[in-house]
Amino acid sequence: MNGADVLCDVLLANDVNICFANPGTSEMHFVAALDRRPEMRCVLGLFEGVVTGAADGYARMTNRPAVTLLHTGPGLANGLANLHNARRARVPVINVVGDHASYHLALDAPLTADIESLAAPMSNWVRRIEGPDDVARATQAAIHASLSPPGIATLILPADAAWGEARPPASAVIDRPAPSATRGEAIRSAAEAIRKARGRAALLVRGTAALADALEIAGQISAALDVRLFSEVQVAHMQRGIGRVAPTRIPYPIDAALEVLAGIDVLVLVGAPEPVAFFAYPGKPGRLVHNGCQVLALAAHGEDLKRALEELRDELGIKSSQAVPQARTVPAEGRPSGALTEDAVAVIVAQKLPDNAIVCDEGITSARRFFSLSEQSAPHDFMMNTGGAIGIGIPLSIGAAIACPDRKVLNLQADGSGMYTVQGLWTQARENLDIITIIFANRTYAVLHGEMRNVGVQTIGENARRMLDLDNPLLDWVSMARGLGVEAARARTCEEFTGLLDHALARHGPFLIEATI
Amino acid sequence: MNGADVLCDVLLANDVNICFANPGTSEMHFVAALDRRPEMRCVLGLFEGVVTGAADGYARMTNRPAVTLLHTGPGLANGLANLHNARRARVPVINVVGDHASYHLALDAPLTADIESLAAPMSNWVRRIEGPDDVARATQAAIHASLSPPGIATLILPADAAWGEARPPASAVIDRPAPSATRGEAIRSAAEAIRKARGRAALLVRGTAALADALEIAGQISAALDVRLFSEVQVAHMQRGIGRVAPTRIPYPIDAALEVLAGIDVLVLVGAPEPVAFFAYPGKPGRLVHNGCQVLALAAHGEDLKRALEELRDELGIKSSQAVPQARTVPAEGRPSGALTEDAVAVIVAQKLPDNAIVCDEGITSARRFFSLSEQSAPHDFMMNTGGAIGIGIPLSIGAAIACPDRKVLNLQADGSGMYTVQGLWTQARENLDIITIIFANRTYAVLHGEMRNVGVQTIGENARRMLDLDNPLLDWVSMARGLGVEAARARTCEEFTGLLDHALARHGPFLIEATI
Repeated sequence: MNGADVLCDVLLANDVNICFANPGTSEMHFVAALDRRPEMRCVLGLFEGVVTGAADGYARMTNRPAVTLLHTGPGLANGLANLHNARRARVPVINVVGDHASYHLALDAPLTADIESLAAPMSNWVRRIEGPDDVARATQAAIHASLSPPGIATLILPADAAWGEARPPASAVIDRPAPSATRGEAIRSAAEAIRKARGRAALLVRGTAALADALEIAGQISAALDVRLFSEVQVAHMQRGIGRVAPTRIPYPIDAALEVLAGIDVLVLVGAPEPVAFFAYPGKPGRLVHNGCQVLALAAHGEDLKRALEELRDELGIKSSQAVPQARTVPAEGRPSGALTEDAVAVIVAQKLPDNAIVCDEGITSARRFFSLSEQSAPHDFMMNTGGAIGIGIPLSIGAAIACPDRKVLNLQADGSGMYTVQGLWTQARENLDIITIIFANRTYAVLHGEMRNVGVQTIGENARRMLDLDNPLLDWVSMARGLGVEAARARTCEEFTGLLDHALARHGPFLIEATI
Repeated sequence: MNGADVLCDVLLANDVNICFANPGTSEMHFVAALDRRPEMRCVLGLFEGVVTGAADGYARMTNRPAVTLLHTGPGLANGLANLHNARRARVPVINVVGDHASYHLALDAPLTADIESLAAPMSNWVRRIEGPDDVARATQAAIHASLSPPGIATLILPADAAWGEARPPASAVIDRPAPSATRGEAIRSAAEAIRKARGRAALLVRGTAALADALEIAGQISAALDVRLFSEVQVAHMQRGIGRVAPTRIPYPIDAALEVLAGIDVLVLVGAPEPVAFFAYPGKPGRLVHNGCQVLALAAHGEDLKRALEELRDELGIKSSQAVPQARTVPAEGRPSGALTEDAVAVIVAQKLPDNAIVCDEGITSARRFFSLSEQSAPHDFMMNTGGAIGIGIPLSIGAAIACPDRKVLNLQADGSGMYTVQGLWTQARENLDIITIIFANRTYAVLHGEMRNVGVQTIGENARRMLDLDNPLLDWVSMARGLGVEAARARTCEEFTGLLDHALARHGPFLIEATI
């Protein structure tokens, strides 16, 4: 067997059995090896941003790495933006980046590029395979690195390491890293600070602390001691909906975020970093807590966050039978009618969200009310763009749908962002994934119009308009989706939108609704 | 005025007046500054690969840099693949990459990334602006770096350098670098080697040596002393067609390349590096000349290549009145009819190519006969993918059309590669660019099927087929193009294709033909 066969076998032995791929010539031996392993599911993306974003979505839903197959430096480069998001979501991904045969690099052939330099900013771990006999060891190290703590592992596979004769490892299965133990001192310090700041303390949850079981415990602490619950602005993954404890998402606009956190004197981080402003603005702070606020880490990402919350609850003397608060009442919105608006779309989707759905929200400005509106929707999993690199919604949905084939995936998608990885619709069709894509067709980078006002520009001229608006020509998402093999239709009124959403929910397979707002 | 204003003014003062852009929040002050400078033409791309590929096309036709406007690390990352191609084409480009305010970086906000590490592999020059007062100096240095020798200059613009108060420079206009002088010793050595290897010597031209005037001189040398003329496999830019001297393009398949160069004992490089295999294959060499071949550089990229050829001609004692050879006779292909094939498309386009057209060839396997077929076409400029990062054809056409608004641009486009930057069709529509895109719709990565055979796989199974074929579902390019605002139609027969091409040639503005082959 050759190195490529060993690579496949080590991945499969460790339950890495999804390969999101866009291969090239230097990966042909790996493709041939995959062809000999039908138990590896290979999913083609017509652009690498689709490949890496899908691996992110898969990992968020399973906490398991998929492997991406990328072609040399430029192929990796095309996938970097969504790897950036995956790294910020802190999920496991294993990138296999094919490269020239080792001895070919010195010739500086046209495709040669410094893969290590490209990979480093978006990877937690990078390694170049040294030869056929290094494949097994390096692959095992990559799997381990992706899982401990979850992160982006990039493995560079020279063509001669793939095609060279290689021995299979004596033992292909690695010892999986266990979550780090919680730290008693951190638990006690957090408990002490919370006790002293009654009514002015908060927990900030993310990662596994934002899943339903852990949120329930956070909710008990909140109820017993009047502790506020927050989540990050950009939610990597949260389980929410009726019956679940709902943290307050820290607002994106900096003034609103400062206001929400103004009354907090103790902020306890549960798997989260300290919240900061997404961007800097002249004369405004970057930190969002006030200068006197005490910020403590209860547990870091990679630790057992649910266990840490349990220990905190116990340390605070709260019973495990503590009742959690009733959900906040969400105002009834009635049944929207007439011309479609972005808020009407959010209301209708929140009302009709099916049980156990997965929502991938890259609605940017258009879906801003969806999060609060869906607090009382049917229980669902919720994911967002975590790193600010736009173009993740369509790929993220692919990964989620492959991870959870029996669940409905809804992608709330801004039009400008959606254009970045529109190619992913084809993969949705090819794999017949159960995804409803809802395009908020506002024909503009609306967020940037807001940011222009934030920098003090009130009147927008021709040059700026030409960089911020998508209105000439109009993007026809129905045509694009059909061109990519996805059934699609346009809604201009609430009634049309409701009808199309009902239709899409009742069937299986990808469907796109262009919501003209 | 602020730093962003200074940046604009320095660019404009140095005739950098095209900005291919996809901005984000951190660039809002730069967008506002551009808005105050209507003499800067801002062209929006809906994905950064469109932006950088367009800058490449513009530079190839003008030898002048355009500026690209990219949003932080992920925005740059999205543009890297086509910057890789531009770097391999050795053209001038100035990237302005917006970043967080300098003091915001320490907070590691979600969009923070190591821009320098990302930029380095695809840039010849990288500099981070140190503050508002550094903007003028840094911008001048970037322009200079892009021109001397032509290359990719990446300028990182922190938001606070853009918004901070800045002084305009005393003198905004830089001294433009002159081409390096030719080296007499290199001329004499080349002449001596050519004289000794009569019938076994060759010139390899690229860059300005592949433009019509320089080729004429190379043709004189070729005619007088039986010197072969070669161009690289991947042609960055060549002026060709009837009446022009036509070098032989070194073939892409390694065995064919070895055969073509087997009889060459002296290879004189004129602005080109030594030719090497695009990829390594087990048991085959990477260098394409034989081991006994003497390889000499007459002049390097950045030197005055036409002048170097003149000096070589003079050194060889060839008169400036030396006649150049008649063009090789291209076999008459007649008028193709019936079912459309890739070769029929190439024949029809070569026959109908209008005078002074610009051809952007990313047809990969499908257009392989076009180059020889078009040797006797009307005079035209010809450009290819230089770095092997696919997805350049559509953007390259944009840049060429903006550089040369009075000329017809024809983009021969493979379907798989075209999908990488399909978003560019929208920019073609928005700017009403005179581009005919011809999609070779073979519904497969045909080149990879060939490469699978090259690695010894004769029978392709389900997993490989799922990574190499684009046939399920079929890509409907007509729908996609219309969705992006470009008029489009499908041709299944030679007669339909001819009719559509005639129609597209007779009108102005973008048109796409899906050639079903």
